[in-house]
Amino acid sequence: MLTVFGSTALDTIRTPNKVLKGVLGGAATYASISASYFVKPGLIAVVGKDFPKKYHSILLKNLDLRGFTVKDGKTFRYDGKYDETLSIRTTLKTELNVLGNFKPKVPEEYRKSEYVYLANNDPEQNVALIKEFDKVKFSMCDTIEFWIANKKPSVIKMIKAVDAVVINDEEAKLLTKEHNLIKCAKKMMSWGAKYVVIKKGEHGSLLFYDDVIFPSVAFSLEDIVDPTGAGDSFAGAMIGYLASKKNVNLSTIKKAVIYGNVLGSFVVEKYGLDGLLNLKKSQILERVNQYEKMIRF
Amino acid sequence: MLTVFGSTALDTIRTPNKVLKGVLGGAATYASISASYFVKPGLIAVVGKDFPKKYHSILLKNLDLRGFTVKDGKTFRYDGKYDETLSIRTTLKTELNVLGNFKPKVPEEYRKSEYVYLANNDPEQNVALIKEFDKVKFSMCDTIEFWIANKKPSVIKMIKAVDAVVINDEEAKLLTKEHNLIKCAKKMMSWGAKYVVIKKGEHGSLLFYDDVIFPSVAFSLEDIVDPTGAGDSFAGAMIGYLASKKNVNLSTIKKAVIYGNVLGSFVVEKYGLDGLLNLKKSQILERVNQYEKMIRF
Repeated sequence: MLTVFGSTALDTIRTPNKVLKGVLGGAATYASISASYFVKPGLIAVVGKDFPKKYHSILLKNLDLRGFTVKDGKTFRYDGKYDETLSIRTTLKTELNVLGNFKPKVPEEYRKSEYVYLANNDPEQNVALIKEFDKVKFSMCDTIEFWIANKKPSVIKMIKAVDAVVINDEEAKLLTKEHNLIKCAKKMMSWGAKYVVIKKGEHGSLLFYDDVIFPSVAFSLEDIVDPTGAGDSFAGAMIGYLASKKNVNLSTIKKAVIYGNVLGSFVVEKYGLDGLLNLKKSQILERVNQYEKMIRF
Repeated sequence: MLTVFGSTALDTIRTPNKVLKGVLGGAATYASISASYFVKPGLIAVVGKDFPKKYHSILLKNLDLRGFTVKDGKTFRYDGKYDETLSIRTTLKTELNVLGNFKPKVPEEYRKSEYVYLANNDPEQNVALIKEFDKVKFSMCDTIEFWIANKKPSVIKMIKAVDAVVINDEEAKLLTKEHNLIKCAKKMMSWGAKYVVIKKGEHGSLLFYDDVIFPSVAFSLEDIVDPTGAGDSFAGAMIGYLASKKNVNLSTIKKAVIYGNVLGSFVVEKYGLDGLLNLKKSQILERVNQYEKMIRF
């Protein structure tokens, strides 16, 4: 089984062409829905009583919600605005609401999960939570600038506690104080990460393991409307694919990265979560084939 | 035969760890030396009487210099400084000197060149020069911000006049006023370019032809000391490889891009031209093999 722990949010997303208000979002939502194309993930997350029924139905349809809590209060809300090029996002508002004093717990039914993805939560929560699982085979975490700036020692402890770190390039540089991404990865590996995946948005990603570097391009897209959730969907697809293969050797992990690129490419083609919902498995396989054809020489 | 037209310079390069003064440089120098691993290129360029003998010897050893002129006056000089991350270069000084009123001419012996590379020269000069060749099979040009800002209509004419444009990502955006690189390439193709190659530095490149997109990663390097000439070496290797294969079908062009990535990777490992000089063909082949192995999944 795969368990995903992280935020489920109501997002306001301001893009140059369209503004979405109060739509289903959050790192764990993107990651778990993306993973759901490979396995049925368990989700540990909390929302408030204001969480719309239609969004609950979407989660229920795709995920195992035995770890999902509805609490008195309001759902975590995020409001962000993209610049004209869609490459810079400015946070306008973050309202933690029920997330503020959430004490996550791994439900009995999830404890035997062999695959665990810890989204960009408080690193101390992530470290505490991973210990509640009994037989983890492969764990992966992400982190964001906020935690690097405010709890760097805890971020480093978290990196030590998991098998793989998935992190974007700017955050990897910030965390390690290195400019070169290979140096960034080596530093994270020296802190105890076995695998490091550095996400570079439209430029693809770099996977590091031991002295192996596996660079991969992004799936080339002409029409990108909303980058929200691309990185989370990348990570979700990666661990979902691994969980479905029940295998974590290097060549399976490389393939998982390709699925990460592909699921990330679906998300950005539509607004919010729309690009990720209701995909057919055949569409995903077709794009993986297109990807392989595209890079061949 | 391959002819390269462009600047030969004496560069001052200021990197965070080392400053080089008055070293051999210039777009055509990098491009032609890079191409010289595949064919013996003819070089159309001009230097002044101050051009050091040792640099002349380097060119003479690797290139056909029947199009190379030494004029009264001083050699073109460029002075630039990299930031700490080596990703931003600021131009401190440009002294055109003998380049200022240079009237390039294709020598009789070069007229039958089937392969022509026009470096980032005045686009009007490039357009005039390409007409002096009798039987061009494949021509390629680069351009830089200066010409885009000052002679954009001429840049567009130049793009129409050649088969392929090699251009870096920021300049492609500036020229086409598009944010998405596929849109950038499509616009350049609508202006008449058959092939477009967008260089993305450490993120590799994108080749466009018709409705084909071929993205390729850069060869991953941990220790980069001086990015000068990487793009020029990329282009030189590309056209040198094509000239050596006497073939310009798409799969040969894709392979040429890989050689571009590989030669570009050698340059940045050492200062100035040093990384590009005295390579063994076996080193290049070995790195191409490493490249193929690196990206395989």
